[in-house]
This record gives sequence, C-alpha cells and structure tokens, in this order.
Amino acid sequence: MNYTAKAIADFLQGELVGNPDIVVSDVSKIEEGRAGTLAFLANPKYEKYLYSTKASVVLINKNLSINGNINPTIIRVEDAYKAFASLLELYVRSLPRKSGIEQPSFIHSTAIVGSDCYIGAFAYIGENVSIGDNVKIYPHVCIGDGVKINSNTVLYSGVKIYQNCILGSNCIIHASTVIGSDGFGFVHAENREFKKIPQLGNVIIEDDVEIGSNVSIDRATMGSTLIGKGTKIDNLVQIAHNVEIGHNTVIISQAGIAGSTKVGKNCVIAAQVGIVGHIKIGDNVIIGAQSGVSHNINENQVCLGSPATDALTQKKAMILYKKLPEMYKKIGEFERYIKDHAKE
Amino acid sequence: MNYTAKAIADFLQGELVGNPDIVVSDVSKIEEGRAGTLAFLANPKYEKYLYSTKASVVLINKNLSINGNINPTIIRVEDAYKAFASLLELYVRSLPRKSGIEQPSFIHSTAIVGSDCYIGAFAYIGENVSIGDNVKIYPHVCIGDGVKINSNTVLYSGVKIYQNCILGSNCIIHASTVIGSDGFGFVHAENREFKKIPQLGNVIIEDDVEIGSNVSIDRATMGSTLIGKGTKIDNLVQIAHNVEIGHNTVIISQAGIAGSTKVGKNCVIAAQVGIVGHIKIGDNVIIGAQSGVSHNINENQVCLGSPATDALTQKKAMILYKKLPEMYKKIGEFERYIKDHAKE
Amino acid sequence: MNYTAKAIADFLQGELVGNPDIVVSDVSKIEEGRAGTLAFLANPKYEKYLYSTKASVVLINKNLSINGNINPTIIRVEDAYKAFASLLELYVRSLPRKSGIEQPSFIHSTAIVGSDCYIGAFAYIGENVSIGDNVKIYPHVCIGDGVKINSNTVLYSGVKIYQNCILGSNCIIHASTVIGSDGFGFVHAENREFKKIPQLGNVIIEDDVEIGSNVSIDRATMGSTLIGKGTKIDNLVQIAHNVEIGHNTVIISQAGIAGSTKVGKNCVIAAQVGIVGHIKIGDNVIIGAQSGVSHNINENQVCLGSPATDALTQKKAMILYKKLPEMYKKIGEFERYIKDHAKE
Repeated sequence: MNYTAKAIADFLQGELVGNPDIVVSDVSKIEEGRAGTLAFLANPKYEKYLYSTKASVVLINKNLSINGNINPTIIRVEDAYKAFASLLELYVRSLPRKSGIEQPSFIHSTAIVGSDCYIGAFAYIGENVSIGDNVKIYPHVCIGDGVKINSNTVLYSGVKIYQNCILGSNCIIHASTVIGSDGFGFVHAENREFKKIPQLGNVIIEDDVEIGSNVSIDRATMGSTLIGKGTKIDNLVQIAHNVEIGHNTVIISQAGIAGSTKVGKNCVIAAQVGIVGHIKIGDNVIIGAQSGVSHNINENQVCLGSPATDALTQKKAMILYKKLPEMYKKIGEFERYIKDHAKE
Repeated sequence: MNYTAKAIADFLQGELVGNPDIVVSDVSKIEEGRAGTLAFLANPKYEKYLYSTKASVVLINKNLSINGNINPTIIRVEDAYKAFASLLELYVRSLPRKSGIEQPSFIHSTAIVGSDCYIGAFAYIGENVSIGDNVKIYPHVCIGDGVKINSNTVLYSGVKIYQNCILGSNCIIHASTVIGSDGFGFVHAENREFKKIPQLGNVIIEDDVEIGSNVSIDRATMGSTLIGKGTKIDNLVQIAHNVEIGHNTVIISQAGIAGSTKVGKNCVIAAQVGIVGHIKIGDNVIIGAQSGVSHNINENQVCLGSPATDALTQKKAMILYKKLPEMYKKIGEFERYIKDHAKE
Repeated sequence: MNYTAKAIADFLQGELVGNPDIVVSDVSKIEEGRAGTLAFLANPKYEKYLYSTKASVVLINKNLSINGNINPTIIRVEDAYKAFASLLELYVRSLPRKSGIEQPSFIHSTAIVGSDCYIGAFAYIGENVSIGDNVKIYPHVCIGDGVKINSNTVLYSGVKIYQNCILGSNCIIHASTVIGSDGFGFVHAENREFKKIPQLGNVIIEDDVEIGSNVSIDRATMGSTLIGKGTKIDNLVQIAHNVEIGHNTVIISQAGIAGSTKVGKNCVIAAQVGIVGHIKIGDNVIIGAQSGVSHNINENQVCLGSPATDALTQKKAMILYKKLPEMYKKIGEFERYIKDHAKE
C-alpha cells in the first residue's frame, strides 16, 4: 500500500488542502498518528488531535472548521468515517486471498463445491453438501450432511454447521461458532427425569449476515431458526431454537434470545441482554445493555432495565435507586413527626 | 417417513376421529401446518389454529372439547406433546446413523474403542483412552489422554475433552464444548503477580447428561467437578472447578456457577444467572433469569433478582422500582407539608 | 509421586510434627482426605476437618494453634496454600510432557518452529508463522498467517489465532478460545443496511497471560487489542476490538468489555460484568459480579451494580430495595394522614 494524498483525494472525490505528493503506506488512529500514515477525524471529541497528530494525511468532514496550525495534508469529504472505511475496504480487497484446496481435507464424494473456493486443511465437508462459488472454508470447519452454502461466504477456522442448515451469500462466520446444534427441548418423564424432544428443523442464515466467534445458534424443533438478511451478530451470543430475527438487526456480545421469540428488523439488542421465549419484539426497537425483556415490545420503543421498561422511566428509577437511603431516612422522619403530633 | 393416521393412532393407542387412511410424510407446527404433515396441539393458547390448520393429522389432548369445524384427522391421546415427542424420537431412530472410522483420524495405539462406534475424520483420540460401544465421535473432537467415555454417548464436532475426564452412557455433548480445562486458580506472588495453582482433578459427567454448544466445564483443582445423572445444560454455560450438580437439574443458556458450589437435584437455573462460589443450593430450587445468587438457598425455594431473594418479595420490589419517581415526589410533598406546619 | 513427610517438610523448610516416614502418593482436599494423601488447611472455616481428616500429611499455617487430637503428620509453613501450590507445581513439572510433531499436521513451508515443541495431529500452522522454543500446540489448533508465538506458551486443542497476532512467552490459552477475530465494526449504508469496517489491526498478548476456554478476543480496527503481562482471563469472556488491559488484572468468567476501553493494572473484573466502550478503568479497581459500568472509574475504587456506583452506596440501596413495599405502604399512610388533617 503506497498512495499519494492526491490519489486518495481523487478516489474519494474529496477536497485536498496541503501537499498532494505526500505518500502514505499504512493507516493509524489520529491520536497515535505516525508519519507515512493516513488517519481520519470524525468524532468532534478527537478534534484536538488534529493539531498534534503526526499522521501525514487526515480525512475530515467537509464542514469542519480548522482552528489552529496543522501539519498533515487534509482531505475534506462528506463523511470522514465512511470514506476511511471505503479506503480500508479497497485495501483489503487488494490483499492476496486464500484459494485452492489444501491437504489433507475431507470432501464427501457426493458434495458439490463451486469454483474459486478455498478449502483449508482438515476441513470436513459432509454428504450432499452444496457449496457456491468463491466460498472460503478455513481449517477445522465442519459442514454437516445436506448443508447448502451460497457464494462468497467465509467460514473461519473451527466453525461447525450441523446437518441441513442453509447459509446465504456474502456471509462471514467467525471462528468456533456453532450453527444448528439441537434446541434445548425436553419434557418431564417419570421420576423427574427428562426426555429429549428431537430437534428436526434447521437454521437458515440469509445473505449478508456476519456472525462473531463462539456464537451458538440452535436448530428449530420443526421449521427453521431464521437470521434475516444483513443482520450482524457479535461474539458469544445465544440464539435458541425457532427464533426469528429480521433484516439489518444488530445483536451485541453475550446477548441471549430464548426459544421461538421473533425480533423485528433494524433493531439494536445491546450486550448481555436476555430476552425470554415466545415473545415478539417489533421493528426498530433498541434494548439497552444488560436488560431483561419478558414481554412483547412494540415497534420503535427504546427499552432498558431488568425487567425492561421504557428507557425514560428506567433512567429516572435508576437515579432514584441510589437515593433510596435518603428516601428511607426521610420516611423515618415523617413517621416520627406523625407519632409526635399524634401525642399532642 | 410415510405413515397413515391409523398407524400413528395404533402406535400411540389414541382415539382416531376422521379419515384413518390419510398419509403424513413430515411434521409441522399447527400454526404453519401443511397438507401431508402431522402436527400437535398441547398449549390451549394455540387452540384457534386447530380450526384453520392445513395439517392432515393433529394430535390433541384427550380432554379437549372441539368447538367448531375442523379439517384434519384428529388423534386424541393422554398428553399430545409427549406423544408427539415419542413419534419424533421413533422417527429419529429410523434415520441412518453415522458409523465406521473415517480417515484421516488419529487413534493412539493404546486407546480402546468399542464396537459400532463412529469416528469422524480429523478426530483425535489420545493415550490410554477408553471408549464404549456405539459411541459417536464427530470430526475435530479431541479426547485427551486417559479419558473414559461410556456407551451410546455422542460428541459433536469440535468437542474438546481434557485428560482423565470421565463421561457416562447416553450423553450428548454439542459442538465446541470444552470439558476439563483448568480451573481458574491463582495465588498472589510478589509484585502483585499471580502464581498458577495446578489443576490436578478431573470432570465426571454421569449418565444421560446433555450439554449444549460452547459450554465450558473446568476440571477440579483436586477431586472432581461433577455433573449429575440426567442433568441438562444449555449453550454457553460456565461451570467452574469443583462445582457439583445433582440429578435432573436444568441449567439454561449463559448461566455461570463459580468454584466449589454445590447445586441440588431437580433444580432450574434460568438463563444468565450467576452463582458465587463455595455455596450450596438445595434440591428443587428455581432461580429466575439474570439472578445473582450470593448465599446458600434452601430446598424448594423460588428465587429472583440480583442479589437474589425469594421471588415474591423480588416481584413486589420490581413493580415498586418503577414507582420510585412517584414515591420520591410524594416524599417531597410531605417534606413541604411538615415544613409548612412547623411554621405555624 | 511417592514422598515421605520428611522429604516434603525439608523441601518446604517447614516444621514437622508427627511421623516423618509416612508416605503420600496423591493429594486430597482436607474434608475428603484419604490415607496416603497430602492435604492443606489454609481457610480457618475448614479447621474442624483437621481433627477428622484421614489425610496422612497436612500442611498448616505456622501460627495455627491446634485444639484437639489429630491423626495426620503436620507440616507448619508460612502460608499453607502457597506451599501446597508449590508442591503441586513441582509435581506437575515431573509429569511427562507432550513433545514431537504428530502426523498428519500442516506446517507451511515458510513457518519457523523452535526446538522442543509439541505439535499435535491436525494442528495448522500458516504462512510466515514464527514459533519459539518449547511451545506446545495441541490438536486442531489453527495459527493464521504471520502469527508470532514466543517460547514456553501452551495452546490447547481448538485454539484459533487469526493472522498477524502476537503471543508472549509462558502463556496458556485454553481450548476453543479465539484470538483475533474481526472487531464488531459497521457503518450504516443506504436503506438501513450495514457496511463492514475492515479490521486491519491485531491482538498482542504479553508474557505470562492465561486465558480460559471459549474466550473471544477481537483484533483492533487499527493498531492492537492488548492483554498486559500477567493478566488472567477466565472462560467465556468477551474482549472487543482495541481494548487494552494492564498487567496482572483478573477478568472472571462471562464478563465483557466493549471496544476501545482501557483497563488498568491489578484490577479485578468479576463474573458477568459488562463494561461499555471508550472508557477508562484506573489501576487497582474492583468491579463486583454482574455490574454494568458505563463511565470512567478512578483508580482504587470498588464498584458494584448496574449501573455501577461505589460499592457502599450500592449495598445500602440493595438492602433498601427489598424494603420498597414497606416504604410504599408508609408513604400511603402519610398521604392519608395529611388528607385527614387537611379536612380538619
């Protein structure tokens, strides 16, 4: 990676201020900027670093006014963060990509593998599996019988996909994530023992989904557990059997969703949230970190707390929670007041 | 799978109402029922679907009274859900099962493997391992030295079992679960550095235990971490060193139990619960989701909250928590009242 | 392992009381002591077991006064727990260690492997990887291109390390842990869809770090996610991109730290804690279990609760929380009192 400031400005159709010929070969954070690197400034909190950074080129928002002396060459763009992301993406695309089939790997004779795929050593591809073009399967991935994986999807090392699950195109699944393990379904038999309910469904992951590492997504008892198009799931998340998630929803690390719950599109479920089974979360809902949700939530709500209520009520209660000792003391005072006046 | 309604009714010893010759080839949920499928109705909330479902055959509870026109053939049984589960189990048993030893796999020359086992490609079986009959070991399972696994147990892809652990019969362990990793034991050395306490014990899993995916169960420092017969553990659960769990207890997703705690039999530990170390939870205890338990709990208690108390107290407090703003306002009013009356 | 009480006392420079020739061949917990084993007594809560244990030799603290008849030979040392840990460590070092390169394994032709390493079957070592001396790599470990691992580090089965990460010396990483997966970084594109921010940084793990099983540590967007020297991380922990952890900090099971947060040295982050992104936790901070931290914390603080405040305030509020029904009732009484007196 060796680009002049001018080449970058041209690519981004941005406005260049400073030396157009300066060359960058790497990227850096503005607060840790080094000579020869490209940085960006999007968050106004970081503006002070613009005046001290050693980065050679900095992308900034079009409307930012500069109030001091600066060293780097500046490129003004509509949205500095998005422009930076575009450049990173361009860079990543220029990197060499894994390809070919490494040995030893296990590909069942009935499996169909598309063109331009990478299959790492020790990958296992079961019976009647179908894999699209340009799929990247890293070492130690296990793809169960009857699984279908569409084109351009990447499965990192150690991903485990149980039988008959379906993955869309352009998905990314990170290491050690498990898709299609049995749902947690039991009935009581005699003597308080449990009897397993066979889990005969599957998991369907639509296109453009990214799933972090060490995630567990259980297969449906019947039918499908469904992850909608464009949804992004962070590390260590639990998705139980028959859950359905809409499009472009975000589920952050260590959250868990119990069986048969339906989550709408464009939702944000923050870290360590728990959602009970058999409920419905509407579209565009935001659920704050560590909340516990035990009932349906209508669309466009912002919720917080355990049990979760609307965020405003919850925030007020959270503040007053800390005032409980003060409240308790005052109640004691009133009690004494009433007792004293009753004596009179 | 192609069964007539009559064959199913005969097998279940149920009472058939409708066409005995109609054939089903798959199962479905009653609310999504399709022609040619078998469904069940157990939860009264779903009764309305009985009158609209397209399922060909529906299992219902003996005592359900039908109040309308229905299309499907009905089979009345004692418990529709259990009957359905039995049929699913029968169906699953009829499916072809994995068998044989795939190559390449690694089986140490000192390991003993029973009859009718499946050993997937890339499975690793260490020194002096002993594996019973009819055990299924999927690809990428790693079985450490000296491990003993009893008959009919299934280890899905990527399960890791450290040295000297013991697994019972009829267990199911889902993908990427780790059994026998070192307990988290350190003592302070000089300079605030830590010194590791070697973890020399093991994990013992008794018969009929099912464990979900991405679970961590640590080995004991000395002695054994113990999972009792018939206990069911969901995904992403943490069981620390020297924990002991009784028979037929259920531990739901993302719960964690700290070191040396003993949990009784027939307990339910709901999702995202945390339990501190070195305490005792009695038999038949139910702990609500997201609770934090920091003290012993006697048998037959129902607990909730963080810190956990009895569920009734906790539920009252949870309701009033939301009324804190109202309470705070009223306290202000009393304060003004007293001030006003003091002036007089 | 066959040692006389005298040999153990000499090694520990402890004071022996009882039979110096008695032999131990195993260790046990004092409450479960068996003949022929060595136990220790450090926690005064367990003193009663000293008078009933069947262990042959017991280590006790120098200053403990014995108030009854005891069977075992006693060895008095400065700190019984540390002395016991030293013996365990000595014992563990005496055990046979894995060595050699098992087949089949995959070692890229450009990879450099030090002396006395163990490389288990089905381990994968990518392009330009550099591995120091005496490193132990168990089966199914995947080491991505350009990774550097320093001497004496142990990677248990199924550990996955993405490209370009760096691990120090004397580290232990437990099974199925993932280091270097992509940070969770997206920007909104059109139509509420997300666009991935490429994650170009890496993870640096310094010397003497131990990490439990099923942990996820994401790579930095740019720069490095950093785990400081001597830090210990328990199972199922989430460390997001660009997080930096100081030296000798402890992070207990199922805790999660969001992106770009900096945690100081000598901290204790208890189980199931959540910490938001972009904040700073000072040195020597203790955060109680299940807390939710949403703001900077100064050094030496003890915090608790969700949202977390100082532990003292939180504990008072937690006690009064249970008294909310009583408080609410009293507020009702005052209300009636005021109404009654207003009538007069």
